[in-house]
Amino acid sequence: MSETAPKSVGLLIFEGVEELDFVGPWEVFTAAREAGALLEVFTLGWPEREVRCAKGLRVTADHRLTDGPQPDALLVPGGRGTRPLAKDEAFLALLRQKLDAAAWQLSVCTGSALLGRTGLLDGRRATSNRIASPFFRDSAPNAIYVDDARFVRDGSIVTSAGVSAGIDMALWLIGQWFGIDLARKVQTYIEYFPEPPYADAAVR
Amino acid sequence: MSETAPKSVGLLIFEGVEELDFVGPWEVFTAAREAGALLEVFTLGWPEREVRCAKGLRVTADHRLTDGPQPDALLVPGGRGTRPLAKDEAFLALLRQKLDAAAWQLSVCTGSALLGRTGLLDGRRATSNRIASPFFRDSAPNAIYVDDARFVRDGSIVTSAGVSAGIDMALWLIGQWFGIDLARKVQTYIEYFPEPPYADAAVR
Repeated sequence: MSETAPKSVGLLIFEGVEELDFVGPWEVFTAAREAGALLEVFTLGWPEREVRCAKGLRVTADHRLTDGPQPDALLVPGGRGTRPLAKDEAFLALLRQKLDAAAWQLSVCTGSALLGRTGLLDGRRATSNRIASPFFRDSAPNAIYVDDARFVRDGSIVTSAGVSAGIDMALWLIGQWFGIDLARKVQTYIEYFPEPPYADAAVR
Repeated sequence: MSETAPKSVGLLIFEGVEELDFVGPWEVFTAAREAGALLEVFTLGWPEREVRCAKGLRVTADHRLTDGPQPDALLVPGGRGTRPLAKDEAFLALLRQKLDAAAWQLSVCTGSALLGRTGLLDGRRATSNRIASPFFRDSAPNAIYVDDARFVRDGSIVTSAGVSAGIDMALWLIGQWFGIDLARKVQTYIEYFPEPPYADAAVR
């Protein structure tokens, strides 16, 4: 099954966003665009000031979350910056509005805690970074927590596990939207045939 | 074998740098720092202006390549921005000087073409993104090209394959520098237990 209608993806960035949480999917989505997918990709946030990511990288958003373009798919990454945002009721109301207006709601790592805080995950299956699962459970008490998947789809909501898992989720979405052949082209371009060293570490 | 002396890593960023090429290793190195490694991590480039990466992400360097701190390990990423830099003799002379002053010389993807253009790879084993192998061969005609590895170490030079391969290389380096246990902590933190979807794509 593939959908070939043009699509757009907006990736939320904010003070303390985890770098790889959004740059992994960003790379996959933009590489799909360059491989021919009708896909617009942009960052959303507060472009009037530079963001310091969780580990210090300096990035700037393309558009404002408040009045920038509404994406078909809104991706919410994680990182330590989700902790203050999880308590920011005005932000959460705005986020819920943007999520409701999107056809797809995506998260990476503790981004799912923010989805949870908006109430979007009530009664839905979802995941998060295992290390941060208490934060997720607190933020999404009515979600059905899945702790053994790279990513979880429940309807139009796709939540992924920690940090690097967003790459897997984004590749899967490209395949769903534009066909598996295109997803494989992207995988080949970014040479995503991982061989993590010190293989015993795979024993979690 | 592990070395526990404090270390620093500088990641070069430039107009047209491929996003995941440097953010993958950045995430690994900075996560190691947070896990207790005595490791300083910063970006080098031209901080007086924002960089547009190869796929459009807006980032800003921490320090100037010319007069910023000299890192123990200098990492050169790839991306379409390497093409003009490969013809910029003044840049290549500066790069060679910074590479010679570093204890380790690292590259991801077509970053190895820039290493090649400085002459650093003459007679050395090295790799690059397979798709861009003609560019690499032209830029490093006296290197011994390895086309079947995620990354290749030859002495103090470690070159990695395309885009995502920099994650594997950085994790390996953390293990060499600070011990395998720390590398495994980082792997667990970023949940780098990849499961690329559409598994047949792994048939390269």
